Amino acid sequence: MRLSLNQITTKRWSLPEAVQGCVDAGIPAIGLWRDKVADTGLAEAAKLVRDAGLAVSTLCRGGFLTPTDPEGRRAALAENLRALEEAAELGTDTLVMVVGGLPDGSRDLADTRERIADKLGELAPHAGDFGVRMAIEPLHPMFCADRAVVSTLGQALDLAERFPADQVGVVVDSYHLWWDPQLATQIARAGAAGRIASYQVCDWTLPLPADTLLGRGHVGDGHIDFHALTAMVTEAGYTGWIEVEIFNEKIWNTPGEQTLQTVIERHLAHIELRETR
Amino acid sequence: MRLSLNQITTKRWSLPEAVQGCVDAGIPAIGLWRDKVADTGLAEAAKLVRDAGLAVSTLCRGGFLTPTDPEGRRAALAENLRALEEAAELGTDTLVMVVGGLPDGSRDLADTRERIADKLGELAPHAGDFGVRMAIEPLHPMFCADRAVVSTLGQALDLAERFPADQVGVVVDSYHLWWDPQLATQIARAGAAGRIASYQVCDWTLPLPADTLLGRGHVGDGHIDFHALTAMVTEAGYTGWIEVEIFNEKIWNTPGEQTLQTVIERHLAHIELRETR
Repeated sequence: MRLSLNQITTKRWSLPEAVQGCVDAGIPAIGLWRDKVADTGLAEAAKLVRDAGLAVSTLCRGGFLTPTDPEGRRAALAENLRALEEAAELGTDTLVMVVGGLPDGSRDLADTRERIADKLGELAPHAGDFGVRMAIEPLHPMFCADRAVVSTLGQALDLAERFPADQVGVVVDSYHLWWDPQLATQIARAGAAGRIASYQVCDWTLPLPADTLLGRGHVGDGHIDFHALTAMVTEAGYTGWIEVEIFNEKIWNTPGEQTLQTVIERHLAHIELRETR
Repeated sequence: MRLSLNQITTKRWSLPEAVQGCVDAGIPAIGLWRDKVADTGLAEAAKLVRDAGLAVSTLCRGGFLTPTDPEGRRAALAENLRALEEAAELGTDTLVMVVGGLPDGSRDLADTRERIADKLGELAPHAGDFGVRMAIEPLHPMFCADRAVVSTLGQALDLAERFPADQVGVVVDSYHLWWDPQLATQIARAGAAGRIASYQVCDWTLPLPADTLLGRGHVGDGHIDFHALTAMVTEAGYTGWIEVEIFNEKIWNTPGEQTLQTVIERHLAHIELRETR
């Protein structure tokens, strides 16, 4: 099974609880979050996942590269260097990057996007040194102003391709990208260039909640065609982990064991079975 | 002044009130909605705007072309033929088209998009006969599932260009398109092909409200660079009306006269002044 649990899906669980949950449920990999890692302690977290025999599919997350003031820029650089180091220590080769939205008071998308490219350029050699690839995650366009001015896979690839493929890749996240009329073309392009660093899944469900960050559903509960999407990613040559990442208050309030069972059922019903036909 | 009031901006006003409001405020054009036209009666509405000396920039709206059952398909066709006829009667050359989301139970974006092309093909000759252009409005990707599977200007142009330019055009709406990294390229393409049928404006403000349809703000209140966007549209050769279309409960609850004053102030501060420099 290529299923990985992104630990935000079981947000109420600590890292040790999530690790144990994966072991108990037979999920072979986990995507970690830096705040949860910090709660446990980096060395202890690394030991826990290693001893449990879990692969670490990704570390979430670096990014937020758009500050304009010198202090903010220095802080962003330092924070991302720490994130790269943590990723290496945790034994994952992938650091998910949410690039950041418009800086306060700015409406200049072009300038902001160029600033991100500059920062990635500063970080890329360090990523190479750590053996960790920065995976640019295009976010849904509804997050363009406040979270990520990179909104499409094509745009993420344009950015990634300025740097070596082992230093900068892209995330294919179903929730953010499913609507894109160029998706098939851009996934094929990403695969051919060896740039797909992560495939993350959750479903687009309606209505959107008051906090639009938290509107994601279990695979199969919404409008996304996971058969078609997974076929695209597979045909593009991606053989890595398939990470379930769900932000949803109701799912967070469900017991973790139950969530993991649903995650596994949906994975086998909508993703991996079809893929291996 | 090239300002037009899309009458949804003053939703509490009837059509006669909106017409009088434009006359009083010195706004030379109005974008009408079919439900408001129906409330007044088509012939009476046409006479009112004509007698008031207002131009009718658009009629909103046709579309919702995605039903799959025979009855739904027939109804959609009939409804759009009526909308084209009403547009002609009201003296506008532009019918805004919101194409529709995924049909109930479907996750097949490609099929749904192709169905829209088929329906536009059936309608296009009639649009020609009426002297009314169908203006495909790409909606923000957050409306892809439920309102419009056409999400980008490039995609709208791919669709429009299957038909004569006087029968099918596109809408450039700031709210829906501002985030698109290909926006400058696609606006230039649309202009060169003579396909820009309407330029609609309102601002992207945060946080999004519980009903994401209603999150639009006055020009200048949000994150969109209207100087840059208007320059793109102008350089593309568009010389038509600039229509302010705001869905926002708080603005709807503001007295119409006050809203029109804000609309005019913002238009002169952010759009038309810069444009004529």
